[in-house]
Amino acid sequence: MKRLDWNVLDEQARRTALARPAQLRADALRQSVEQIIATVRERGDEALFEFSAKYDRCVLEAIEVTEAEFAAAEAALDPALKAAIHEAAARIEIFHRATAPQPVAVETAGGVRVERVLRAVARVGLYVPAGSAPLPSTALMLGVPALIAGCREVVLCSPARADGRCDEAVLYVARITGVHKVFKLGGAQAIAAMAYGTASVPKCDKLFGPGNAWVTEAKLQVSADPEGAAIDMPAGPSEVLVIADEAANPVFVAADLLSQAEHGPDSQVILLSPSYAMLDRVAGEVERQCAELPRCAIALQALAQSRLIAVDSLEQAVEVSNRYAPEHLILQVAEPRALLDGIDSAGSIFLGAWTPESVGDYCSGSNHVLPTYGYARSYSGVSVASFQKQITVQELSAEGLRAIGPCAAILAAAEQLEAHRRAVTLRLEALDQMVLNQSVLDRTVSERLT
Amino acid sequence: MKRLDWNVLDEQARRTALARPAQLRADALRQSVEQIIATVRERGDEALFEFSAKYDRCVLEAIEVTEAEFAAAEAALDPALKAAIHEAAARIEIFHRATAPQPVAVETAGGVRVERVLRAVARVGLYVPAGSAPLPSTALMLGVPALIAGCREVVLCSPARADGRCDEAVLYVARITGVHKVFKLGGAQAIAAMAYGTASVPKCDKLFGPGNAWVTEAKLQVSADPEGAAIDMPAGPSEVLVIADEAANPVFVAADLLSQAEHGPDSQVILLSPSYAMLDRVAGEVERQCAELPRCAIALQALAQSRLIAVDSLEQAVEVSNRYAPEHLILQVAEPRALLDGIDSAGSIFLGAWTPESVGDYCSGSNHVLPTYGYARSYSGVSVASFQKQITVQELSAEGLRAIGPCAAILAAAEQLEAHRRAVTLRLEALDQMVLNQSVLDRTVSERLT
Repeated sequence: MKRLDWNVLDEQARRTALARPAQLRADALRQSVEQIIATVRERGDEALFEFSAKYDRCVLEAIEVTEAEFAAAEAALDPALKAAIHEAAARIEIFHRATAPQPVAVETAGGVRVERVLRAVARVGLYVPAGSAPLPSTALMLGVPALIAGCREVVLCSPARADGRCDEAVLYVARITGVHKVFKLGGAQAIAAMAYGTASVPKCDKLFGPGNAWVTEAKLQVSADPEGAAIDMPAGPSEVLVIADEAANPVFVAADLLSQAEHGPDSQVILLSPSYAMLDRVAGEVERQCAELPRCAIALQALAQSRLIAVDSLEQAVEVSNRYAPEHLILQVAEPRALLDGIDSAGSIFLGAWTPESVGDYCSGSNHVLPTYGYARSYSGVSVASFQKQITVQELSAEGLRAIGPCAAILAAAEQLEAHRRAVTLRLEALDQMVLNQSVLDRTVSERLT
Repeated sequence: MKRLDWNVLDEQARRTALARPAQLRADALRQSVEQIIATVRERGDEALFEFSAKYDRCVLEAIEVTEAEFAAAEAALDPALKAAIHEAAARIEIFHRATAPQPVAVETAGGVRVERVLRAVARVGLYVPAGSAPLPSTALMLGVPALIAGCREVVLCSPARADGRCDEAVLYVARITGVHKVFKLGGAQAIAAMAYGTASVPKCDKLFGPGNAWVTEAKLQVSADPEGAAIDMPAGPSEVLVIADEAANPVFVAADLLSQAEHGPDSQVILLSPSYAMLDRVAGEVERQCAELPRCAIALQALAQSRLIAVDSLEQAVEVSNRYAPEHLILQVAEPRALLDGIDSAGSIFLGAWTPESVGDYCSGSNHVLPTYGYARSYSGVSVASFQKQITVQELSAEGLRAIGPCAAILAAAEQLEAHRRAVTLRLEALDQMVLNQSVLDRTVSERLT
């Protein structure tokens, strides 16, 4: 890990210090993905079988997971893992229900009722990668909010192993979160199938989930096409930034840095501390703990592009963190809440010594599908709202139109939109006419009665 | 307007009936916009002056609006328009405050506190078009939620008129909604300036607002670049779908259709009704009212690609509407609330005879920046949430980690992420050690005391 001192760096060096590993949208990748998408759109399921043979190296009999496979997966599942899945799902459900948007209705003027109603995105596609290992936790993070939102059709794609099966835990999660169809598909071809539909795979309105460079490129391409599908957010490699003071436990800090570094060679980890001694101790611990990890080689590659940065204060650490806008931010300091208000941008924040980042990956209840690569400046992580649309509704009584119609007419006139103005004034005139007719009627009646 | 009967159409004809006017991302447009963006990135302000001269046909002395211009604009503003702006702003504020996300904190297990906190997107760019007429209402729809969200730096771009000035009402709205800087910039060059920054224009994290094909293409391009900026949503031409039963007033229905048609030649309007007589009456009214409009020629072009469609019931009308997913949906029926639950996809909905779509454009309180072109299937209109990020926060006590740590460790093991597992188990071991030390200490103390 590179050691730097923030206060001796000039602006250019600071920029370099916080630069992410470049994610070039290389032309070759872009074109390959365009080709895969075009082929799936043209030849449908047939293309999917071919791509699975070519890229996932498995010859599939059918791309959709069958009832028998679901049953076999459940039967094969370790009971402790099954229990952990249910436990995590329950906590994810608590937090996601608590943060789900609620309907709203207000009167903005007498007789003017304005509402926000919620509707689930009808057809959603969840992508669960299985590159180096299965990720049942990602299936939970997508399946639970889709279920709470009430999406009508939930499709999940995850690449099959070489034996032609999907991971048992992923299938089990799909089942308990009410996913309607699971397909053994990975990579750009899975994204293409869900965005455009094939004979087997339903066309989806919005796609969710992380993935490798091919998946990410495919998501970008289908989201730029109005005939394609929306996406949750752009994605990049996972990353963590830790702020530690001298009270932090270097063993814990090192473990947190490594839990991010083991994700992949392009993961990035950054430690900020006002304590040189802490930077030294953590560097030593990282080296020691890394040697014991099965994914040590991957972690070492990630660590090569990672940084230990000395800052002059915790306030400066917060400034640097905001500038970086990390996916995960760990505050291993004596008073983490004192720093929280100053944090502008991060995907998810972990406070104090007893909150390792990996509890957020699995079971604290928050979502682990988060903005990376600086996107935390403008994007939020996945939540129930990601699976819903918020529709506004307005209903005016005659009184309401009388109250606000003149304002609309003046603004429409200022914008030289005469038809907009008339849609209001025609109605106001009709109302006046109705009042007039009523008063004539009233007079006639009262004359007859007298 | 084309007359169609939904129930005699086959699937292909139904698709054609609901097809939007094609919005081709023509290669020529794409390349021109790429060129403009590259030039702005390379030559900054200098390029902006040149593009303004070339595209807006105005020679600017400065691109930033000065204090003197703001003051002159306010002084020149018609008091009735000023009052209407304040009235509209107040109603927009009521609704947007009522629908703003709130912080949430829950315990998902004993000692596991999980929160959602809100942070404004720090630097936002608002685009207010001025193609055929000024649009102060769009400035309101973007400025009010940005103000409520508390964005640190709000930049607004709107093209200058040939006299080198911006519209007075737009400047006045910018002032009262707390916009920090206004630039006389339009088109792709305005988007490029806000996405990447120049010496004068601050770099923004997220861009908002409607625009023509150039603006839309530029927004797409900068949003696909991690160095660029996020955007509110993809955009297309404005559109309305009206569902009318025989109780509807054809004069009102025609006025609503025309208020959409006058937006531009590529606007689309659709009327669905189970009553042939209503379709006839509205067709006649549209013709009659259109002739009286100053923008009649534009409306006629839009009407040429619009549709009057006979359906067999209001239920079928809802089905067809959901399939189309209109930006604006007007329910001119006797019992509009009876249809509301069935609506899956729409940007904003208008209920009943006294709710013209144009009140939503200006002053009912809802936002008029809405998903068009079928994007209402997966996107929502602009709201305070569009200007914020929702960050999750978790804080575990030692008790909390004991409660949920084992679950995280089991899931990490299933995913073969050993460093994730150890970040938890190292801490649990440290806790056990602390308990052991404490009990040794307790024993020693009690032995000494006895």
